Amino acid sequence: MSNEEAPIQQQQVDLEKTPEPAEPKPAEPHPAPAEEPQQPAAAPSADDAQEESHTFRALVLTGHGGYDKIKLQVKTQRMAAGSGELLVRVKACGLNFAELMGRQGLYDALASPPVTMGMECSGVVEAAGEDVEDRKAGDRVIVLSSSGLWQELVVVAADQTFLMPDAMSFQEAAALPVNYLTAHMMLFEMANLRPGKSVLVHMAAGGVGIAATQLCQTVPGVTVFGTASASKHETILQGGLSHAIDYRTKDYVEEIRNISPAGLDIVLDPLGGSDTNKGFGLLKPMGTIVVFGAANCVTGQKKNLLAIAKTWYNQLSISTMKLMQANKSVCGFHLGYMKDFSLIRTTMETLLGLYTEGKIKPRIDSTYHFEEVADAMRRMQERQNIGKVLLLPEPKKEEEKVPEKEAEKEEEKPAEAPASPQEEEKAKPEEAKEDQG
Amino acid sequence: MSNEEAPIQQQQVDLEKTPEPAEPKPAEPHPAPAEEPQQPAAAPSADDAQEESHTFRALVLTGHGGYDKIKLQVKTQRMAAGSGELLVRVKACGLNFAELMGRQGLYDALASPPVTMGMECSGVVEAAGEDVEDRKAGDRVIVLSSSGLWQELVVVAADQTFLMPDAMSFQEAAALPVNYLTAHMMLFEMANLRPGKSVLVHMAAGGVGIAATQLCQTVPGVTVFGTASASKHETILQGGLSHAIDYRTKDYVEEIRNISPAGLDIVLDPLGGSDTNKGFGLLKPMGTIVVFGAANCVTGQKKNLLAIAKTWYNQLSISTMKLMQANKSVCGFHLGYMKDFSLIRTTMETLLGLYTEGKIKPRIDSTYHFEEVADAMRRMQERQNIGKVLLLPEPKKEEEKVPEKEAEKEEEKPAEAPASPQEEEKAKPEEAKEDQG
Repeated sequence: MSNEEAPIQQQQVDLEKTPEPAEPKPAEPHPAPAEEPQQPAAAPSADDAQEESHTFRALVLTGHGGYDKIKLQVKTQRMAAGSGELLVRVKACGLNFAELMGRQGLYDALASPPVTMGMECSGVVEAAGEDVEDRKAGDRVIVLSSSGLWQELVVVAADQTFLMPDAMSFQEAAALPVNYLTAHMMLFEMANLRPGKSVLVHMAAGGVGIAATQLCQTVPGVTVFGTASASKHETILQGGLSHAIDYRTKDYVEEIRNISPAGLDIVLDPLGGSDTNKGFGLLKPMGTIVVFGAANCVTGQKKNLLAIAKTWYNQLSISTMKLMQANKSVCGFHLGYMKDFSLIRTTMETLLGLYTEGKIKPRIDSTYHFEEVADAMRRMQERQNIGKVLLLPEPKKEEEKVPEKEAEKEEEKPAEAPASPQEEEKAKPEEAKEDQG
Repeated sequence: MSNEEAPIQQQQVDLEKTPEPAEPKPAEPHPAPAEEPQQPAAAPSADDAQEESHTFRALVLTGHGGYDKIKLQVKTQRMAAGSGELLVRVKACGLNFAELMGRQGLYDALASPPVTMGMECSGVVEAAGEDVEDRKAGDRVIVLSSSGLWQELVVVAADQTFLMPDAMSFQEAAALPVNYLTAHMMLFEMANLRPGKSVLVHMAAGGVGIAATQLCQTVPGVTVFGTASASKHETILQGGLSHAIDYRTKDYVEEIRNISPAGLDIVLDPLGGSDTNKGFGLLKPMGTIVVFGAANCVTGQKKNLLAIAKTWYNQLSISTMKLMQANKSVCGFHLGYMKDFSLIRTTMETLLGLYTEGKIKPRIDSTYHFEEVADAMRRMQERQNIGKVLLLPEPKKEEEKVPEKEAEKEEEKPAEAPASPQEEEKAKPEEAKEDQG
């Protein structure tokens, strides 16, 4: 929980800007994720490459370590939608904790470098492959994948895409999937949230925290406790949190016991380590803790062996005998390891319905162009964000580079894609400044 | 899972029949259970004892060990309902696994001997104390307690009693609480059972197994796998089980994988040890295992150190990291450790409603008089029962002692209590014979 104080070394991302590929390099070998064939097409054959090659920007993790390990590359290769696939021009990508861990080599579901990360994006279908009946060029889609989406152009399995509601912006669409799926599946599949229950949400100003807070409000009488630094309290309380606790100046266990002496029904724990033990102790009988991360491992830019050792040492290891005597449940959740896509699909449909009914709305913290990925990651790692941090594939315009203005302007006049009917979320310049200052 | 083969030494219960208390011994010190003041009244004062003393039969655990450690005693002491209490004449008591473990000294929620066990019974209110407004003499009630109910007359807190539905027999009433509360809270509070899910119920012919099978049928499209020895399959399949597996001749993991290659949504595990690991392995992503016993510890009549060591050695101890990578939940449940009586109360109300609607009906395996408690325990420990084993406080009649006829006749003509409107469940003589032969 003390990660925010951890010193961070400022580093610049190296940009390999090669807009005109002087030396046509071989296609980056993209190790396909476990079971999903949505990676870019294989290296072009001599024939194909000549007749239909694409040039696009991609963020590539070239090795494990600090922010400088992610390079912006411009690739030229043939991208074609095969059977059951779509070619999608990406408008916005989500940044997740899994990618901070992946960069440090702490996320074993990610293939070895070089690899393109990115589990969620929004975009416009450019072409649909054979056997794709329910998607066509021009469709605005949300895409989910185990990795590979941080690039301007992606080839994905059609059945891992979802049509965006008309009212949804590209930025909202990129901000929704991972955070809301995670929050919804934890609250409703694992923890069985029902009226009148009490929930603790750590990192309540983070993407999952805000999603969980909104989803808790779809159930009557749910009390939501959230931890976050004091400067974020006003915003998250407006977002529906019942009690905001500044974990940096107060003992959150004590604060919660003061308000709710009997304890809590549900704890959502993205921290791991000793915080899991504290959360377990806070549960009422029949209570459930869902561990969905080990953010306590991620302190500083590079793999922090001491933090990892400490987190692991304190990792809750429960005997079933102890669980029986306490009448408690311990669950683990990580969307990246979810093999059952049918549940993801039905949950996404539920979430898109809730969005359309106005019951949930992703909060965009800030947007960064691909070339600013280091700033984006630093903002998340230092826990400065309130809501989602997004990456935009389109290059930062020259005039934008002087002030710290974000890139929402480009969304309003998309090149070849049908424009989003509503304005994108405005990034908060003063928050971006906090990060960049 | 190999307990059924374990050799059992035949032993007789010592009966201390002292119908006329020649030497008026001091009241048995009944250590009160943790938070429930429903134990028999304290030792009578000199005055009270003279004016209103009761003589009643009680089963007393006199030390940890074999069947002979439970003595039938006849006590004479004043039994009066204090404020908020009821004096109840007991008609039938449930036998549970916790009492097998308690006798062996393996159940730490039970006070040290001498102590009277018994967590559930049915009976008739003889007198209501002050401040009890919703119960009166003559009411037929179900009683729950952490212990102390295996006696003819008990003083209990009124708010730990439930009025029996008119159609319910005393035997059903004594068979329902622990098994159905356990099954219901595991399936619906912890495991979030919903339509179309698959469930594995170990010891499917046991009290909880039959309760769980019936409760699964209240939800559409639930597939229930159950393990039991082959001789019980016909009965439990008639009871609604989808697939019966003879764990003694087949590898249940393999059998289940053959039928459901993707695995299971829910495993209810009363066994512990290596079976918990197998159950965990059988879970689908988002699946839940609820461990609610360590029956693998209870082999043979006395504490079996080898079985305990083996069960503990194989006890699942899960790191949260492993849970995250598997997207699974591990829960522990034990009604005896449940401190939150409000949830027990609402669940009992739900269960009594389901009984009245005809959706659940406790299956009585057999009934034993108090003096036959060793036979009752042996039947359960050797896993010969199909359904609930009950203990009856009323003495066995002389004419009954020749054949192995059970005691349901007495229920039909209760002495001072309003008769149950329906006939009690008939005990199955042929099954009783299997036990006693």
